Amino acid sequence: MNAPLKTIEGSAKLAATMHLLGREARAASRVLALAPTAQKNRALAAMAKAIRDTRAAILAANAQDVAEAASAGATAAFLDRLALNAERIEAMAASLTLIRKLKNPVGTVMASWRRPNGMRIERVRVPLGVVGVIYESRPNVTADGGALCLKAGNAVILRGGSESFRSAGAIHAALVEGLVAAGLPAAAITLVPTRDRAAVGMMLAGLHGAIDVIVPRGGKNLVARVQTEARVPVFAHLEGVCHVYVDGKAKLGMAKAIVLNAKMRRTGVCGAAETLLVDRAGAARLLKPLVVMLLDADCEIRGDAAVQAVDRRVKPVSETDWSMEYLDAIITAGVVEGVEAAIAHIERYGSHHTDAIVTDDKAAAEKFLREVDSAIVLHNASTQFADGGEFGFGAEIGIATGKLHARGPVGVEQLTSFKYRIRGNGQTRP
Amino acid sequence: MNAPLKTIEGSAKLAATMHLLGREARAASRVLALAPTAQKNRALAAMAKAIRDTRAAILAANAQDVAEAASAGATAAFLDRLALNAERIEAMAASLTLIRKLKNPVGTVMASWRRPNGMRIERVRVPLGVVGVIYESRPNVTADGGALCLKAGNAVILRGGSESFRSAGAIHAALVEGLVAAGLPAAAITLVPTRDRAAVGMMLAGLHGAIDVIVPRGGKNLVARVQTEARVPVFAHLEGVCHVYVDGKAKLGMAKAIVLNAKMRRTGVCGAAETLLVDRAGAARLLKPLVVMLLDADCEIRGDAAVQAVDRRVKPVSETDWSMEYLDAIITAGVVEGVEAAIAHIERYGSHHTDAIVTDDKAAAEKFLREVDSAIVLHNASTQFADGGEFGFGAEIGIATGKLHARGPVGVEQLTSFKYRIRGNGQTRP
Repeated sequence: MNAPLKTIEGSAKLAATMHLLGREARAASRVLALAPTAQKNRALAAMAKAIRDTRAAILAANAQDVAEAASAGATAAFLDRLALNAERIEAMAASLTLIRKLKNPVGTVMASWRRPNGMRIERVRVPLGVVGVIYESRPNVTADGGALCLKAGNAVILRGGSESFRSAGAIHAALVEGLVAAGLPAAAITLVPTRDRAAVGMMLAGLHGAIDVIVPRGGKNLVARVQTEARVPVFAHLEGVCHVYVDGKAKLGMAKAIVLNAKMRRTGVCGAAETLLVDRAGAARLLKPLVVMLLDADCEIRGDAAVQAVDRRVKPVSETDWSMEYLDAIITAGVVEGVEAAIAHIERYGSHHTDAIVTDDKAAAEKFLREVDSAIVLHNASTQFADGGEFGFGAEIGIATGKLHARGPVGVEQLTSFKYRIRGNGQTRP
Repeated sequence: MNAPLKTIEGSAKLAATMHLLGREARAASRVLALAPTAQKNRALAAMAKAIRDTRAAILAANAQDVAEAASAGATAAFLDRLALNAERIEAMAASLTLIRKLKNPVGTVMASWRRPNGMRIERVRVPLGVVGVIYESRPNVTADGGALCLKAGNAVILRGGSESFRSAGAIHAALVEGLVAAGLPAAAITLVPTRDRAAVGMMLAGLHGAIDVIVPRGGKNLVARVQTEARVPVFAHLEGVCHVYVDGKAKLGMAKAIVLNAKMRRTGVCGAAETLLVDRAGAARLLKPLVVMLLDADCEIRGDAAVQAVDRRVKPVSETDWSMEYLDAIITAGVVEGVEAAIAHIERYGSHHTDAIVTDDKAAAEKFLREVDSAIVLHNASTQFADGGEFGFGAEIGIATGKLHARGPVGVEQLTSFKYRIRGNGQTRP
């Protein structure tokens, strides 16, 4: 009889904790929204210092997390993502410095015009309010997510993977030290103080109106859960089924460089190419060198009949392969009838993330850039440029594939909203 | 045994109809997204002509709707919103002409920069895709909503109130005539072809990914249902609990003009003031004239003790009154301790819609404009300017009170998204 009772008590207590934490984050967001640039930057500098100063404590907490995960049977890849060392902690501190140097977007006048009745209307950037970040066991997201939201004037509620609970706590302590040193409220960066997964559901329900937007950072399953359950807006970070279309008018050398980079530079990033499409008009000249290059680079190719015909190492492609996000040294490859067919293929199988055309034909390039409905479309450049840093945004919290509010890299500017400020001298509406 | 079977069959049939209609709208949105300005404008001109040409048919359909609603006991106000006449039909056609004259937002380069590696990045406006508009029995929304989405390059699925089913159908027929005359797909503006309320639930579920965003247009209950049930993003049009704060340094004449206009010009619009706050520092000079003016204009006042003290016609205010959207000749009124307290009151009871300060004190005005967290904040101007037309947007589909994507008046520009277009000459990522 005790167990269910305790569960009910436990979940009532958790709900109360989360409700309070939401209210405090909301109150902190009012302070953050009005904080001057210099004060936010002081906090970011103090955070970087505190991360460095408490390195030993962070490493000790992380060692416990890693030991526990290892004994629970976590994979080597998982443990590698979870583990910190002196270098990774330094990278975290350096990232805080980078974010400190970004332009403060809050208060920027985005547009300004005068009405015939003499009123001046301005559209001004303001923070979003409270951002909920739900992520997996990558400790650095605690620092990056907290700092990016702070720079944009938002309070943030962070909920990391339960395997990184101690690491996140130690990093969070350093962030709070920085906030307090700058005279900002500690609740501006809140870490959910429990591993209880029910807390995630409460965040997805919005904590009684305390959360304005949820940013999921992690794999497909996490993002899918967030998108299905969230009662508040979500910056959708769906998978990147990215294409490189090599047009008949492409130079072979450029096509080889771009395809190899797009697929193989790093296979685990969302901007990595997952499908190669080659124009039939150029296939005789282009297909074999591209296929051999990839195979020789130890990339598995799943190809259609035309691709299979050029090298016996090519495996046959299945219908589901065309929409796979491998995040591995595997690529789907096929021959299409020109740019029109490439665009249709991408519309059918793609994920509206990032797609590239390689060609010297300006008309084909413009058609591709115009008609492919993806967050990022490129001509003669690698899909691996799908990254806030490469855009010049300085830092990003992810790549959004939705079409509302944020699309593409989500940097500080995408973490803001706006309002209209109107100055009159007694105008009334006729 | 037959009844439930029939229901299941009926709802399976409806689901199939809605699924198909969503797929067709999605396909039409691909055509619309690439349609040149001239073609969209030809459609809008042909629609206006068709509305005028089929006036008799629209009026006949509307007369049937009105007769049915009247015999079902609809209120006079409801019937007035539902009823069309020659003048209202002409206004609908004129609105289509206004929308035709708006600038086409699609393709506009919003920002452009070059990266150190030579790549040029452009941020370009693109349509959202498919917009679902769910509205009440106001026939003109069929025309306005359809035309605004078309101008922004979106396909639209319209679902009006069931009492206006025939009117909406007749107006929709004219819109389709215009689309077809311009060579655009009829599915670009789809009207849900049934009164079955289950269709609304299917739209809120997104029609299998066919709907990108839902725009509810109507009263509190409709918007609340949409926000609770929607599985796709919603442009939240919450109630307008709008405030006028009359500061101690306000001129009496200006304060009277603005308060009277903000409350009484039209009481049923979302930008109508619902609360008057007067600074205690100016109350002796300002409060009585403002109170008497409103009472003499037949506006009921629910006031705190200070307000009740100046005129015995003032009724006592209750705690819930402070957050009421009356949409009627009623106002809540109270005395506050300066701009700081006014801002705190608005944060507590307001709806983040539209709020105004009247003052000659520049510092108080700037503080109010900066700190009040509403879509629209005004200094020395009436809250009734909360309207896309008054902003110069030409037409609007509503006022958004959410902070994501659209905030304030939702015009053609707010009905678009953007993408990044990158031009390189062989760049790969190091």
